[in-house]
Amino acid sequence: MSSVSVVGLGAMGTALADALLAAGHTTTVWNRTPAKADPLVERGALRAGSVAEAARAADVVVLCVLGYADVHALVDAARDDLRGRVVVNLTNGSPDEARELADKVRALGADYLDGGIMAVPAMIGRPEALVLYSGSTPAFEAHREVLKVFGRAAYLGDDAGRAPLYDLALLTGMYGMFAGFLQSAALVRSAGADVEEFTTALLVPWLHAMTGVLPGMATQTAKGAYASTGSNLAMQVVAQDTLEGLGRAQGVSTELLAPLFALMRRRVADGHGEEDLAGVVELLRRP
Amino acid sequence: MSSVSVVGLGAMGTALADALLAAGHTTTVWNRTPAKADPLVERGALRAGSVAEAARAADVVVLCVLGYADVHALVDAARDDLRGRVVVNLTNGSPDEARELADKVRALGADYLDGGIMAVPAMIGRPEALVLYSGSTPAFEAHREVLKVFGRAAYLGDDAGRAPLYDLALLTGMYGMFAGFLQSAALVRSAGADVEEFTTALLVPWLHAMTGVLPGMATQTAKGAYASTGSNLAMQVVAQDTLEGLGRAQGVSTELLAPLFALMRRRVADGHGEEDLAGVVELLRRP
Ligand SMILES: NC(=O)c1ccc[n+]([C@@H]2O[C@H](COP(=O)([O-])OP(=O)(O)OC[C@H]3O[C@@H](n4cnc5c(N)ncnc54)[C@H](OP(=O)(O)O)[C@@H]3O)[C@@H](O)[C@H]2O)c1
Ligand SMILES: NC(=O)c1ccc[n+]([C@@H]2O[C@H](COP(=O)([O-])OP(=O)(O)OC[C@H]3O[C@@H](n4cnc5c(N)ncnc54)[C@H](OP(=O)(O)O)[C@@H]3O)[C@@H](O)[C@H]2O)c1
Repeated sequence: MSSVSVVGLGAMGTALADALLAAGHTTTVWNRTPAKADPLVERGALRAGSVAEAARAADVVVLCVLGYADVHALVDAARDDLRGRVVVNLTNGSPDEARELADKVRALGADYLDGGIMAVPAMIGRPEALVLYSGSTPAFEAHREVLKVFGRAAYLGDDAGRAPLYDLALLTGMYGMFAGFLQSAALVRSAGADVEEFTTALLVPWLHAMTGVLPGMATQTAKGAYASTGSNLAMQVVAQDTLEGLGRAQGVSTELLAPLFALMRRRVADGHGEEDLAGVVELLRRP
Repeated sequence: MSSVSVVGLGAMGTALADALLAAGHTTTVWNRTPAKADPLVERGALRAGSVAEAARAADVVVLCVLGYADVHALVDAARDDLRGRVVVNLTNGSPDEARELADKVRALGADYLDGGIMAVPAMIGRPEALVLYSGSTPAFEAHREVLKVFGRAAYLGDDAGRAPLYDLALLTGMYGMFAGFLQSAALVRSAGADVEEFTTALLVPWLHAMTGVLPGMATQTAKGAYASTGSNLAMQVVAQDTLEGLGRAQGVSTELLAPLFALMRRRVADGHGEEDLAGVVELLRRP
């Protein structure tokens, strides 16, 4: 069993600490607002009086706060106490921020792993949670058992920026799906139909089925070749007009999908009406 | 075995006719551009010389063309030959368009079913395809066996507008997911990483996992109550800033998600930062 500190006890940090306690690891906790540590201490966690104390208490120091500015402040506060530790930063940030932080942590004599938590707090500790790690290979190997407590642990190599890249790309995919959900829920609700039944009985199985076309779209994107496989853009833009008309008729803004629809129409206008949707990716390059 | 005509032999009509042939139904086909019927005739379909002839040839007349203007032209061309038939319109349109067409078809002495095909052509005839039907209950019951040839057949009641409402709402959800995919693929590709591996190994399983939160969001939407369940908006907008920064750094426009992010920030500015994302639906009402 390793000793682990969790610094930052928001919704996510609390879930991480609880998973460690449940797995039997010695768990020390610290939070800026100390009261948030109380329930965890009642459940068996040790309370650190400072970030520095949390660093001294453990082999593995997990950071899970709001943003990178906060992470830097915490590392600065513990700078004399991190030597020999592994810092596992699970705060969301960019690849460049992760690489810069990795350099800073290594300069303090500690090892660095960056992690992207692909889960909401309620999923932590369950097999449907995935955490992407990148950074120090020896650190990942030495502490694999701890890291697997949070969910499945995928190691993506020694570039600390790789986990945050994929984390952000996955969040992007999720936000698209959520935007689609919100837009469809608004349409169904405004028609007086049952959003919960619609979502459970129809939307979720439909989205599962349609993830089946994403690998094909990925291949088209990788090759830059978008010949239609059965659903050409010229046909799709007709259905879009209908959808926007439904929004107008029901008093629902369809703004969440407006940029996609605009790009699809631009592809058709550019002569790609007989191609598939994936070609829209070519219009996302910034000059 | 019923006799069925398929009018409109684009990518989808061709798949429908092939599924009928495979199931052993007498299948008559017609397409505006006659050459598209040739391969089906080779595979055993009967060729109609006109829409009217296609209508006379069968108990069930399936229409699958580009839009409602085309459907009306076809019904007009066969107006003296539809009596006693069931018209199954699988062309995408709005609930109001479906109800209006149903009235017109019934006035010609035929029964009407509207259908929303939740599948791409390659899925037709397979269990992952779903077709939503609404309209005449007796027609659905009399021809259930034919209608099940295309995939699972869900009957949503006698309002002809119900299938197109749910069809459009499901398409909305799908376009959101596709927008998210395109945005993430653009980010991954511009970082020089492998879009195909990212999609298959990470994105698809991640989206499957995250559909798990949609029923909860639907309940929040139905109740209009959005108390945070572990991922508050104030935290989420920090990750958004990071994502937009990554787009700028990698020369990728993040416009596909811009409207969602703008509404999320508006919710935070309106004092809902401690709530969940689903509250964004309240901002989609049009005045
Ligand atoms: N929740 C999720 O669904 C989820 C999923 C994946 C990843 N994440 C990531 O996990 C991280 C934490 O998210 P969360 O949901 O736990 O957020 P949260 O519930 O809002 O908690 C934020 C935490 O950050 C701390 N904090 C903020 N500014 C600080 C500072 N300057 N110094 C020290 N501590 C500071 C807060 O301390 P106080 O209590 O003193 O305010 C609190 O512990 C974020 O990077 C997020 O992107 C979250
Ligand atoms: N493909 C899909 O993934 C998919 C999925 C679900 C639903 N749908 C729906 O299925 C319907 C057909 O889509 P599709 O993919 O088959 O489109 P498509 O491949 O572009 O074929 C369009 C068909 O419509 C015919 N047509 C167009 N205008 C016409 C007119 N004025 N009179 C007679 N025929 C006309 C075309 O005839 P010509 O050959 O003479 O041009 C062709 O047969 C659409 O409503 C679509 O929304 C498609």
